[in-house]
Amino acid sequence: MKKQSRRKFIASAVALTAGVAVSANSFTTMETKDKKQLAHHVFFWLKNPGSTEDLKKLLDGLRSLEKIESIRALHIGVPAKTEVRPVIDASYSASELMLFDDLDGQLIYQEHPIHKKFVADCSHLWEKVLVYDAMDV
Amino acid sequence: MKKQSRRKFIASAVALTAGVAVSANSFTTMETKDKKQLAHHVFFWLKNPGSTEDLKKLLDGLRSLEKIESIRALHIGVPAKTEVRPVIDASYSASELMLFDDLDGQLIYQEHPIHKKFVADCSHLWEKVLVYDAMDV
Repeated sequence: MKKQSRRKFIASAVALTAGVAVSANSFTTMETKDKKQLAHHVFFWLKNPGSTEDLKKLLDGLRSLEKIESIRALHIGVPAKTEVRPVIDASYSASELMLFDDLDGQLIYQEHPIHKKFVADCSHLWEKVLVYDAMDV
Repeated sequence: MKKQSRRKFIASAVALTAGVAVSANSFTTMETKDKKQLAHHVFFWLKNPGSTEDLKKLLDGLRSLEKIESIRALHIGVPAKTEVRPVIDASYSASELMLFDDLDGQLIYQEHPIHKKFVADCSHLWEKVLVYDAMDV
């Protein structure tokens, strides 16, 4: 290749592959946005809601769940400091929000040894747990 | 370039740019995964839970919310057919799950004309609404 052709080739290669990268990225975004998913949202009320130590144990336990491969997104949270309104329940101590591809993904999670270990290690910490499973429509 | 060098160059260019594509993708995934977000999850109980017409009106209303620009992800759902357990509340009619970047994003949503129109148009349909706002930790 002559110097000029080589430059042209590099430019084409970069443009081509940049295009591939952008497409791959768009595809990922679109897939996430358009795909019907199952949201599994769990709220925990600690036996000792004032104990930062118990909260830390629970949050650490929840973080161990992220290794479960059928979980597509995981959000571990505490009540947000949004406006106070009668319709908002901010009385829980911590929450886990997971997205799964389908019912099977959620079942794999339920039966996974890491999830069972989390329940065995942490269930003594909470006095109440409340679950909402919502399927995208 | 000789034929062999050119092949080698093409191979390198492809490998290099494939690497770039993968990195860009991983970065996007990591960014989404690592960014702290606010989950706003609302559950609606219809006055007429058996009315498919009322459910459709509510779901259509919820779909109108997706135009609000501070919403980063929107999941509109109905109770999923997961296993029946005492800790699962599957009594609601429909749910909206939104992710925001922060408290400000949620406030923009609350005060947005599209949200206010949704409440004005649809609030007669539900007898109870329950909200959980969770901030990622």
